Amino acid sequence: MSQGADADDAPADVVPPADGFVVPRFAGISTFARLPLIDQVPHADVAVVGVPFDSGTTFRPGARFGPSAIRQASRLLRPFNPHTGTFPFADHQVVDAGDIACTPFSSDQAVTEIESGMRALLERVPIPIVLGGDHTIALPVLRCLRALVGEPLAVVHFDAHLDTWDTYFGASYTHGTPFRRASEEGLLRRGQCLHVGVRGPLYDIEDLTDDSDLGFRMLSTPFVARIGAEETADAILALVGDAPVYVSIDIDVLDPAFAPGTGTPEPGGMLSRELLAVLRHLRGIRLVGADVVEVSPPYDSSEVTALAAANVAYDLLSLLADPRAGPAYEH
Amino acid sequence: MSQGADADDAPADVVPPADGFVVPRFAGISTFARLPLIDQVPHADVAVVGVPFDSGTTFRPGARFGPSAIRQASRLLRPFNPHTGTFPFADHQVVDAGDIACTPFSSDQAVTEIESGMRALLERVPIPIVLGGDHTIALPVLRCLRALVGEPLAVVHFDAHLDTWDTYFGASYTHGTPFRRASEEGLLRRGQCLHVGVRGPLYDIEDLTDDSDLGFRMLSTPFVARIGAEETADAILALVGDAPVYVSIDIDVLDPAFAPGTGTPEPGGMLSRELLAVLRHLRGIRLVGADVVEVSPPYDSSEVTALAAANVAYDLLSLLADPRAGPAYEH
Amino acid sequence: MSQGADADDAPADVVPPADGFVVPRFAGISTFARLPLIDQVPHADVAVVGVPFDSGTTFRPGARFGPSAIRQASRLLRPFNPHTGTFPFADHQVVDAGDIACTPFSSDQAVTEIESGMRALLERVPIPIVLGGDHTIALPVLRCLRALVGEPLAVVHFDAHLDTWDTYFGASYTHGTPFRRASEEGLLRRGQCLHVGVRGPLYDIEDLTDDSDLGFRMLSTPFVARIGAEETADAILALVGDAPVYVSIDIDVLDPAFAPGTGTPEPGGMLSRELLAVLRHLRGIRLVGADVVEVSPPYDSSEVTALAAANVAYDLLSLLADPRAGPAYEH
Amino acid sequence: MSQGADADDAPADVVPPADGFVVPRFAGISTFARLPLIDQVPHADVAVVGVPFDSGTTFRPGARFGPSAIRQASRLLRPFNPHTGTFPFADHQVVDAGDIACTPFSSDQAVTEIESGMRALLERVPIPIVLGGDHTIALPVLRCLRALVGEPLAVVHFDAHLDTWDTYFGASYTHGTPFRRASEEGLLRRGQCLHVGVRGPLYDIEDLTDDSDLGFRMLSTPFVARIGAEETADAILALVGDAPVYVSIDIDVLDPAFAPGTGTPEPGGMLSRELLAVLRHLRGIRLVGADVVEVSPPYDSSEVTALAAANVAYDLLSLLADPRAGPAYEH
Amino acid sequence: MSQGADADDAPADVVPPADGFVVPRFAGISTFARLPLIDQVPHADVAVVGVPFDSGTTFRPGARFGPSAIRQASRLLRPFNPHTGTFPFADHQVVDAGDIACTPFSSDQAVTEIESGMRALLERVPIPIVLGGDHTIALPVLRCLRALVGEPLAVVHFDAHLDTWDTYFGASYTHGTPFRRASEEGLLRRGQCLHVGVRGPLYDIEDLTDDSDLGFRMLSTPFVARIGAEETADAILALVGDAPVYVSIDIDVLDPAFAPGTGTPEPGGMLSRELLAVLRHLRGIRLVGADVVEVSPPYDSSEVTALAAANVAYDLLSLLADPRAGPAYEH
Amino acid sequence: MSQGADADDAPADVVPPADGFVVPRFAGISTFARLPLIDQVPHADVAVVGVPFDSGTTFRPGARFGPSAIRQASRLLRPFNPHTGTFPFADHQVVDAGDIACTPFSSDQAVTEIESGMRALLERVPIPIVLGGDHTIALPVLRCLRALVGEPLAVVHFDAHLDTWDTYFGASYTHGTPFRRASEEGLLRRGQCLHVGVRGPLYDIEDLTDDSDLGFRMLSTPFVARIGAEETADAILALVGDAPVYVSIDIDVLDPAFAPGTGTPEPGGMLSRELLAVLRHLRGIRLVGADVVEVSPPYDSSEVTALAAANVAYDLLSLLADPRAGPAYEH
Repeated sequence: MSQGADADDAPADVVPPADGFVVPRFAGISTFARLPLIDQVPHADVAVVGVPFDSGTTFRPGARFGPSAIRQASRLLRPFNPHTGTFPFADHQVVDAGDIACTPFSSDQAVTEIESGMRALLERVPIPIVLGGDHTIALPVLRCLRALVGEPLAVVHFDAHLDTWDTYFGASYTHGTPFRRASEEGLLRRGQCLHVGVRGPLYDIEDLTDDSDLGFRMLSTPFVARIGAEETADAILALVGDAPVYVSIDIDVLDPAFAPGTGTPEPGGMLSRELLAVLRHLRGIRLVGADVVEVSPPYDSSEVTALAAANVAYDLLSLLADPRAGPAYEH
Repeated sequence: MSQGADADDAPADVVPPADGFVVPRFAGISTFARLPLIDQVPHADVAVVGVPFDSGTTFRPGARFGPSAIRQASRLLRPFNPHTGTFPFADHQVVDAGDIACTPFSSDQAVTEIESGMRALLERVPIPIVLGGDHTIALPVLRCLRALVGEPLAVVHFDAHLDTWDTYFGASYTHGTPFRRASEEGLLRRGQCLHVGVRGPLYDIEDLTDDSDLGFRMLSTPFVARIGAEETADAILALVGDAPVYVSIDIDVLDPAFAPGTGTPEPGGMLSRELLAVLRHLRGIRLVGADVVEVSPPYDSSEVTALAAANVAYDLLSLLADPRAGPAYEH
Repeated sequence: MSQGADADDAPADVVPPADGFVVPRFAGISTFARLPLIDQVPHADVAVVGVPFDSGTTFRPGARFGPSAIRQASRLLRPFNPHTGTFPFADHQVVDAGDIACTPFSSDQAVTEIESGMRALLERVPIPIVLGGDHTIALPVLRCLRALVGEPLAVVHFDAHLDTWDTYFGASYTHGTPFRRASEEGLLRRGQCLHVGVRGPLYDIEDLTDDSDLGFRMLSTPFVARIGAEETADAILALVGDAPVYVSIDIDVLDPAFAPGTGTPEPGGMLSRELLAVLRHLRGIRLVGADVVEVSPPYDSSEVTALAAANVAYDLLSLLADPRAGPAYEH
Repeated sequence: MSQGADADDAPADVVPPADGFVVPRFAGISTFARLPLIDQVPHADVAVVGVPFDSGTTFRPGARFGPSAIRQASRLLRPFNPHTGTFPFADHQVVDAGDIACTPFSSDQAVTEIESGMRALLERVPIPIVLGGDHTIALPVLRCLRALVGEPLAVVHFDAHLDTWDTYFGASYTHGTPFRRASEEGLLRRGQCLHVGVRGPLYDIEDLTDDSDLGFRMLSTPFVARIGAEETADAILALVGDAPVYVSIDIDVLDPAFAPGTGTPEPGGMLSRELLAVLRHLRGIRLVGADVVEVSPPYDSSEVTALAAANVAYDLLSLLADPRAGPAYEH
Repeated sequence: MSQGADADDAPADVVPPADGFVVPRFAGISTFARLPLIDQVPHADVAVVGVPFDSGTTFRPGARFGPSAIRQASRLLRPFNPHTGTFPFADHQVVDAGDIACTPFSSDQAVTEIESGMRALLERVPIPIVLGGDHTIALPVLRCLRALVGEPLAVVHFDAHLDTWDTYFGASYTHGTPFRRASEEGLLRRGQCLHVGVRGPLYDIEDLTDDSDLGFRMLSTPFVARIGAEETADAILALVGDAPVYVSIDIDVLDPAFAPGTGTPEPGGMLSRELLAVLRHLRGIRLVGADVVEVSPPYDSSEVTALAAANVAYDLLSLLADPRAGPAYEH
Repeated sequence: MSQGADADDAPADVVPPADGFVVPRFAGISTFARLPLIDQVPHADVAVVGVPFDSGTTFRPGARFGPSAIRQASRLLRPFNPHTGTFPFADHQVVDAGDIACTPFSSDQAVTEIESGMRALLERVPIPIVLGGDHTIALPVLRCLRALVGEPLAVVHFDAHLDTWDTYFGASYTHGTPFRRASEEGLLRRGQCLHVGVRGPLYDIEDLTDDSDLGFRMLSTPFVARIGAEETADAILALVGDAPVYVSIDIDVLDPAFAPGTGTPEPGGMLSRELLAVLRHLRGIRLVGADVVEVSPPYDSSEVTALAAANVAYDLLSLLADPRAGPAYEH
């Protein structure tokens, strides 16, 4: 019932989250999952970091408040993940690295600033779990991770949209274009990238042929709904193999019922339990970084979007931890 | 990436929606899908038209603001429907015909006014996609289409409720009675009408026997959830055959999680992706008109209901367009 | 169409809910389902009773307004349940017994007061359907029913959480501990109790071993989602057999999309139609009492949570009525 | 601290509201101010009664849920009004008479039904405090009171709007026309009626000349804001003298900041403390009935509108009670 | 009661707004005050035009949806302003010119685009009433008007903030800097500009000395609250004399109670009736253009902010019309 | 424009808030006003500290989330207060001391825990500005300050309610009773305590006589509204003289329009600018501690309540700083 067992097995120097049996979950300064701040521990292995930028958005803004809202919602997270048998905060030091500051006035300048901030962070912590912000931020993160890893990355992209459009109003850096830029810049392993959960109207047939030319495969929402989470995860694992993988999760991959607080909601989406189940079945993936983006709190309702995002981040963190037990639940 | 390809193939005189790459989706006067107004084009084939009437409602009002809210939400629609391979705005001229004005003070008088307004519209445009308003409006629309088509219609009615009750507080024209009236008036093909998505408590067993006597069959929500969208669509197509069909979609066919903004919400409903999938599989149906009703914006949350309704209308429009490609996504 | 048929078959002295064809559903003082108050009838068989207590909550409070909100939402309920072929208000007298008053300032004192209020109620009406309030209230209710029935009870517990933790901040009586207390006090049939819909992070592996030691089995949300409602109901029926059963439904067993208005929301949950379907398939269960708890109206959105809870209570009431017809819908 | 003193002085048979020190204010069935229902006492002097009708509304509907919401908000009211030194529930029996049911489908028919329901109520209780519903309801209430009192009434009408328009879309009975109808029908004392709080755009100059011809004077919001509550009350008292007075309060007389939940909000309005102060200074007015209308809960925010309306009703009730002390506060 | 009198006196070719007695206010495509679109009339004197830009915002975004929300709220406006005795839509042709499209990705580029769009508009219509958008947009509008008028302008700036800061994160064009830029560019008459309604914390004392050096005077909210609207208007008129005046109204000049839907809310602000009264007393001012900015709909509540803004725009339009009567209300 | 001037004059070791020109206000971990945490500086003079407790509430709970919400809203605060000419964060070290953890399950136990936590804090920092939580928390804070100061305190209590009731449901420690307990315990200077902003219904006349016996004077809301902020402040200063003063501000002293997010809202309250003005005129008061309580975020709307509370706390902090300039604004 206490965190004792967990702490016993953990490396001696790991600082765990605040204990919910001692400090109520509604008390205290809100870091992600009530983890220590990066400056409160001598060393960190994984950093949860916010990028509060939303000026790359084409419709509803507000994702600049995403990191703050996800932190608030993450207060409900607990140390043991029975779905995967892991203790995501115990095997190594996970910290909250705060937010990377960037200008809201120019997406070009912001991309540079985010890249610079992320590069500095990666000098201290090798694995980032990024809380957006809009999807623009994936590009500078990918640049940094490409450099850190030393080779192009496979991308597993959960999203209702392709995000491989070319430009909007002449702008190269927007929330609809990061993966085209990343592909053009040689950051991605063509043929080992895929979109999961795509659906809804497009601009033209060329959207799809362009996307394919850029090296992406695609599992649409109706398809995922039909084959189920386990088979979807298997398809993903088969594609990425042992490549270094970046998982990018636009919360609008969920149906607006599950994620109303987002910038370009698209009806007909995935259920939150489907998304979580796919992530839980990605055991063994070589995860080098990830993001959860497009949470727009002013459009959220009773925090359901932020809660979903916090749990998605938690299951990403679980992928980085070694199972100490088998899954506790029959699935 | 531009609408070029689309425009190239389209009939020379079709005026498309405003281009989302040139005018931001949050800018400009809100017509449905940013289509031209009926008076801005010389000719129209399909009209999206609002009927802002909600005084036939027995519980929560507000659907008078439905057309306005659906138009706002429809700004996110794009020209190409990859689920069906169609360009719903390109094959023929689709317009926004504005709203049919009617009194809010009497459902009897309003039914007459709506009928008159709809008759006038049908003299200009043969196919209406009607945005309600409450379900009362289906009756005057059916009267006009029955007259225009020259024969009774099959009705495919998506709804949590039967809407074949007789009277409320002595009133014949309410949102719970349109299909009884329509059946009594000889507007319907008995035996080729059906309810899809029915569920929840009724008044009495007779509700069901009456409904059957009026010529309706029924696919309940639990049944649809079990057999899936494709089989549901097949059952519908088998029933209506090549009859002229009116599709009437009460947004409360969706679960309140997907459509909180409605007048008589009923838990346990369809998912939005199920409803969209059924519509997408109705390829070949002989659609002569349709409605999307009971969107009540004051009860909506972050526009999720209006977004669902806008996409439902979009897929109805897609049924009127010829596929130029196969479905782009594996389903 | 009228309630005539129903009333004809009903015992002569049963007072039905107000008739929705005569008094609009938005009019009148709100009792549950517009039933008579306990003091307005000479005799009652089943009582719907509120327990507006939420000071056992560890995160979001507000469930003290749950009974009031569920009553408001229950105005849409109608007399005939076509899913089970039952008239839940017609076979015997169902009443609204109002609320059991208790202090909000001490969970210890409140548990005593609730127990006392419930004992008094059970002297008048043998079967309670309790509207919470937070989950703390299940303990005093179980104490009373254990005494009334004269033997330990099987518990069918729908919840995202185990609620078998030991203490929070030293307190024994909280919304996370009622079933450990109940097990310790000998109120439960060990081995015939189970959790349905469990999911999400825990504190430690011991949470599960403790729970098992206390006599609970477990059907997780992913498992239930996979096997379906009917098989889930069969597994429950097989476990409880002909034992007297208490059904306890924490509304957070539903996904936050379906039940945002709750204290400790957990993404990845059940759909409302799945929960309703499980209940409808529990035909034959020996139900001696039930609760629907953790509806927190300040976090609700357009009443979707309260509506779900009202319908859950309605299907619990339906389990107490004899079917007069087979299910009206193909499932 | 107890209600003892109050109860001691009160007539022996007066049943007071439920005691907030014994039953928490969030518990129990919601009657107005937790008063007894009309059928729970042998005799009543004043009745609070709802008229849940809103189909006379020209813009936002929702006032049909007004009575229910005002009752919920009224749970915070307490027995002693220190601003006037009165015990409004103690001097005579005040009851909640429930709602007068009427059709939502026709304003003509509803006016007849409300009149009939009100006439029946006045046979049991001579003074009604009516909770709307939209302003249409004032007409049938005035008809009944005119008949009961036996002479025309002075009307003190708090409203942003004149409500003396002639017709909308050909309808005579709407929320914008009750006082023209009442004047035409001889229900009013011409020259002893006035509007308080009028402001905002009109249709034409004739609106004002017509209004004057119908016998109304006018104190605009800017004027009231300048002269203050006390002088406003003096002006009202001077005008109505010892005539029998009906006070009709459209909650939109308050600024939308204080009353967002209303049908036709008009910026630039009165503060709630100004409205309450005017009422408190009307001591000595010969009040024969009153209404509080146009509370539209779906547009309310955290109940602020319903709370304001509940307190307005409370101060109307206080005008019917004799002061037992001077005002307790220096004003 | 009809618009007849108005139409009779109006210039023959003026197209008035849609008539609220014929078309319900909740029906039809939403232009400002239901005015004709610019392309629907041969000539226009005053244009209401939206600038849906909010990427100059330092805190809460969302003002890109401001024009759309203000249009929706403006449906309640009527043709005659009794507070000033004017018919703002009748003396000359007022139109809705739609929105000026600009990029959301760069405030620098957007300023250029807005300037270009505004210049084009001013070639067709000499006087713009601009609906923001954030305050950044005032700069390009001032540039165009300075050029059109041929001399520097006096600015009457209603705002909680100075908006004369220098840069944020190195950016020159933001919502906190337009009036410093305008002053530096020689667009303003130094010494004839003033802020009205300033309040709340600043960065440093220099904020004030800088502001003064740039040529601004200041009437703080507490000062305005003390001297009243009339004297405030007199002080403004005395300062601007017969200079050409641009009135710029940041809706956050109102207290958050009256304008919650804004980007940088500041408690302790003006009441909406005070702001409207100041505007109504500016009779005789030489108005060459105006804006209403910083309405952020995702943070609005029941449209109160948008309603206030619509009425502010209406009173700005009233300043451009000649009184046909004295004020109808005693003030 | 920078914080330079401020920093230059400040004591060398004061760590200021994060700079809003460098780190956007929506970025970073939310401490109050973005101040350093207590453990990040070697020494502190004033501590802002949260007490997230709300189980002493008699109506709407939720104030446990108050500290968190006020911190979020405080991100807009800036370093210079022009209304008083002070730099509240520059003269001495102000820190955010996080939250004092206490049980939500028992108000008795919580009072003990809060007292203990506060005593520990006061050993490190002599002056606390406490963010509630409900009003129960004032009692343990007063106990600690009484001990620290060594003499009874004057209390200036802004509230719609007296909070000197005796017990609720038998409980001594509730949000309606702290000042009776404090008076009984000899913590207060009888005759030098007063309530400001009292209004609304009471339980009985004795409420007032009891209150007077406990040593309180009273300035009701109508009285304060009439005499104005300056005279109110003068009356307060005259009463407290040079006694050590505790200022306790229940946010419900504001009208629900300005503070909807609170537990027992009372219409007819103060404007936020009035409350701020009173505080600003309390210059010279000997402030030894203060609280801002009863902010209930689940009932807030667009953060207006939290914003008001954050600014109230800021003006309390300003009372502790020496003016470096006269007030910058004419008042």
